[in-house]
Amino acid sequence: MYKVYGDMLSGNCYKIKLLMQFLKIEHEWIHINILEGETHTKEFVVMNTNAKIPVLQINDEEYLSESNAILNFLAEGTEFLPDSGYKRAKVLEWQFFEQYSHEPFIAVARYIKKYLGLPDDRRQEFESKQEGGHKALAIMEAQLEDTDFLVGDSPTIADISLYAYTHVAEDGGFDLQGYPNIKNWFLKIEALPGYVMMDRANG
Amino acid sequence: MYKVYGDMLSGNCYKIKLLMQFLKIEHEWIHINILEGETHTKEFVVMNTNAKIPVLQINDEEYLSESNAILNFLAEGTEFLPDSGYKRAKVLEWQFFEQYSHEPFIAVARYIKKYLGLPDDRRQEFESKQEGGHKALAIMEAQLEDTDFLVGDSPTIADISLYAYTHVAEDGGFDLQGYPNIKNWFLKIEALPGYVMMDRANG
Repeated sequence: MYKVYGDMLSGNCYKIKLLMQFLKIEHEWIHINILEGETHTKEFVVMNTNAKIPVLQINDEEYLSESNAILNFLAEGTEFLPDSGYKRAKVLEWQFFEQYSHEPFIAVARYIKKYLGLPDDRRQEFESKQEGGHKALAIMEAQLEDTDFLVGDSPTIADISLYAYTHVAEDGGFDLQGYPNIKNWFLKIEALPGYVMMDRANG
Repeated sequence: MYKVYGDMLSGNCYKIKLLMQFLKIEHEWIHINILEGETHTKEFVVMNTNAKIPVLQINDEEYLSESNAILNFLAEGTEFLPDSGYKRAKVLEWQFFEQYSHEPFIAVARYIKKYLGLPDDRRQEFESKQEGGHKALAIMEAQLEDTDFLVGDSPTIADISLYAYTHVAEDGGFDLQGYPNIKNWFLKIEALPGYVMMDRANG
């Protein structure tokens, strides 16, 4: 059985939980407290030298990190990942967009505000995240004007990757009122069988 | 025939050129000058609303962005991308590592130093990139102690993704003397048939 090392405070970990729920994949969830630095222990870095969660343990020897790589591994052969070709590549395009152009703004702003309590010495950094975050949201909003989900008209792991931090973007000070397509897309994802809320997903 | 919109000043674009050379994929290279802001024209953002290069034009209607998504698309079915399973996921793990834990340090430091000339108002940011960059290099160095290439003993697109900015890391102030496995790995990649140097690859 798969083991997942994660902390539901992290949207990156929530992605894995969501897909496993949608696909009814049995797993054991092992809580790693990021705020307490539990990814930096000697035991943990054996699994991931980059000292980050989530980590998927496949068997005694095989570990996988990077949330989006884990999603691709678990979704192979399912309706959440097209077999090959252009649509499969578009899923990856959105996932790389998420890690480079979305998460560093939206998730980091949320972390500074929600978990660090917006201390004075991070305020400038927090504010510097707003422009890039809104740019990312506008790109998603435009795509969702054309298609029901990010890649065509059925959900893929691209939606899971982007949903994780977007649906809690307001925690980072991003007002979503100007993004009706994104808000409508939230409802479609939340209606999928197996959906679980982020703050109820630990354990 | 594929068209690639890119600028060889960008390691992200060089990745595409390298893979196309290794696989002998015919293509037309269209130079987009990033320093002149040519990714922000009206014509360009039709291809990629995120206003970034590289962009692969597949046909009149299909465009793909994000360098690592393009590599996955082009490498499908070749020896540079395992068919499925754990090794394929490890390729993606390295590529997501590259975009989140490597490129924002090593490529950005290089950009500030080489292309902006290390102006005073970016010096603090430049210096803040050193620790994260060396952390990324150390992770690669440890992997290359165990295997000839990043994922096993033959080259994959994970190597191309990481090679692009690592082999010019010294431009960003990263001394590679402490990373003998990385330097040895450079030689293996540079010995592959079709290899082209970054600064000779434009056009």
